[in-house]
Amino acid sequence: MNNFSFKSYTEFVFGKQTEQQVGELCHKYGAKKVLVVYGGGSVVRSGLLQRVEDALQKEHIDFLEMGGIQPNPVDTEVYKGIDTVHDNHIDFLLAVGGGSVIDAAKAIAAGAVYDGDFWDFYCNKAKVEKALPVGVVLTIPAAGSEGSGNSVITKTDGLHKISLRAPEHLRPAFSIMNPELTYTLPNKQTVAGICDMMVHISERYFTNTTEIETGDRICEGLYKAIIEEAPKILKNPKDYDARANIMWAGMVAHNWTSAFGMQECWCSHFMEHEVSAVYNVTHGEGLSVIFPAWLTYMCKHNVHKPYQFAVRVWNVPESDDKEAVALEGVRRLKEFWHSLGLPITFKELGIDKPDIDLLVSKLHENKGGLVGSYMKLSSIETRKIYELAL
Amino acid sequence: MNNFSFKSYTEFVFGKQTEQQVGELCHKYGAKKVLVVYGGGSVVRSGLLQRVEDALQKEHIDFLEMGGIQPNPVDTEVYKGIDTVHDNHIDFLLAVGGGSVIDAAKAIAAGAVYDGDFWDFYCNKAKVEKALPVGVVLTIPAAGSEGSGNSVITKTDGLHKISLRAPEHLRPAFSIMNPELTYTLPNKQTVAGICDMMVHISERYFTNTTEIETGDRICEGLYKAIIEEAPKILKNPKDYDARANIMWAGMVAHNWTSAFGMQECWCSHFMEHEVSAVYNVTHGEGLSVIFPAWLTYMCKHNVHKPYQFAVRVWNVPESDDKEAVALEGVRRLKEFWHSLGLPITFKELGIDKPDIDLLVSKLHENKGGLVGSYMKLSSIETRKIYELAL
Repeated sequence: MNNFSFKSYTEFVFGKQTEQQVGELCHKYGAKKVLVVYGGGSVVRSGLLQRVEDALQKEHIDFLEMGGIQPNPVDTEVYKGIDTVHDNHIDFLLAVGGGSVIDAAKAIAAGAVYDGDFWDFYCNKAKVEKALPVGVVLTIPAAGSEGSGNSVITKTDGLHKISLRAPEHLRPAFSIMNPELTYTLPNKQTVAGICDMMVHISERYFTNTTEIETGDRICEGLYKAIIEEAPKILKNPKDYDARANIMWAGMVAHNWTSAFGMQECWCSHFMEHEVSAVYNVTHGEGLSVIFPAWLTYMCKHNVHKPYQFAVRVWNVPESDDKEAVALEGVRRLKEFWHSLGLPITFKELGIDKPDIDLLVSKLHENKGGLVGSYMKLSSIETRKIYELAL
Repeated sequence: MNNFSFKSYTEFVFGKQTEQQVGELCHKYGAKKVLVVYGGGSVVRSGLLQRVEDALQKEHIDFLEMGGIQPNPVDTEVYKGIDTVHDNHIDFLLAVGGGSVIDAAKAIAAGAVYDGDFWDFYCNKAKVEKALPVGVVLTIPAAGSEGSGNSVITKTDGLHKISLRAPEHLRPAFSIMNPELTYTLPNKQTVAGICDMMVHISERYFTNTTEIETGDRICEGLYKAIIEEAPKILKNPKDYDARANIMWAGMVAHNWTSAFGMQECWCSHFMEHEVSAVYNVTHGEGLSVIFPAWLTYMCKHNVHKPYQFAVRVWNVPESDDKEAVALEGVRRLKEFWHSLGLPITFKELGIDKPDIDLLVSKLHENKGGLVGSYMKLSSIETRKIYELAL
């Protein structure tokens, strides 16, 4: 087991109508002038943006709006945000949305107090040493960005989609999590989010670090809760408790509570980032295609954890033929995702003939050499995995 | 499900030799003059105290020692600590020990910056509005105080053992968790700690709040990890990974990660506090006597959660006779605790004839009226539960 440190300083305010507290919370964390960052029109149409701004006004907190952040947010939006912060003496970022909006707000928060180009953080040229505080009103449970210190941004020039990790500075000051705000999410987005959080659990769970029962059992508990609750939402999108369980699971999945001294393996995320950078697909749908392919490959080459996953999470009976047990686990996972309406092949994702040459070359270029840690994969192997997803 | 807020701002530094970082961490959290609080001679004999003080000196941080904190720490020690803080301009408390030492340090930290009597916080006369920062070097995984905002102190006059909860101010600034420091813990203390953390999980898990699958599954995962790992420690006290799993489980069990919008029920803890206040027994051993008695009573009167506990945690086959299934779960829990060497009756605890009249009257006097929330128990019912533990 590896040494680790863990500090999750975010204040989570969870439950019905909690967005009404956003003014007080901004005040508590020192906001004088807020940039309200959001995505498409849904937060406008639902009246959420208005309620948020009313709450700010009630606390006499000045603010500006910056809407239009796209899924898979891009560097040009971040540059625009940084300019807005500078021109208007903004001292607090308030993200009203899901992972893309939060990630963009984090990038602006770090970039605005850095002399160089914010992209330096993403391409490992510089470390984040400080950032403006970020608050969150979460509308899409998926990315876990409401509890993490991570941010993923795509550079338009060359389509490099890169994740940054700076937990000391980029965890939100607060995150408001009201499951009611997710009632109107289309099924497509709901299930893509569910897939994303399951893969976040997996990027910890599938590890070569052994004797980590506490972390393993937390991960397995989260998988089981999600498997139990997800279908309830499809049946009744206004099932408050099911929405709430999924929302909290998505946060815990990615705030490192479960990553207990494990070597992590972000291979599926890295492989998917190339897919969504090139084809601009929904991240969670890219993952539901890539992860089962990766896991299938692991059943043959490093069966230990896929076997445990099959037995403990999917209740596959134990057997000496570990590969067969593990593959049955993959089959049940795919079946579950299919039942939610998720694509599990490139074809189902709408990409009949993906440019695998391009994906492989960009992946190994961005990551430099071998990719992953549960298995360190060469370009020959990542090609095979992409092909398994056809 | 209830609304809730959750902010665990403690920095956990986990792993081998991490106590070497204590000087830097004190420095990071602003310590200029530290009061090093500890218990008996074991931290002296093991050389840990010396290593901690060397690390402080290396960072040029001034310090004083305050040893001799007893298990079930008492108000007189807290008053002494507060005087020491005032007389010596202490600005940081460093607890080197287990729950008792940490709880005493927290009481001193809050009392030293309060104009009135610190006991006001414990008897609900005043709220903690501020406290000096507390750091921890953990030597006994049990109480979870290294991650919680709680503190339990006994008033010597009247033997009132009361717990205080002030998560905004009493969570430690940092907690150093090195499993190696627990190698020399006697079995008796190790297993009492394991019992304590299992009951901390239970005080959340046994709730009338329904549809809390994510919280339930995290709790069940923690139980399972502890059941798996505890026997390994008895077999080999220097099993680093088993010690580490238990240590992290004990923290998560009590830092509210799992208490996901649940109504909590601290009945077993309250009932035990009377036992350890009157008979000065080890808290965890008091719990291994009281909790199964409480749970047995619940099997008859509110079987829902005891049934789920039996099925999911102890793998008891499901059946329509829910009470029988639940009671079999209790039997397996008792068997497990017995196998660790824990007492499960007053007699095994060395108290042949407990003064149940006194325990019941003090309990209902301290808590005022009915006790608990999974069931609100009258004095007739708590008497029956104490009797079930004979």
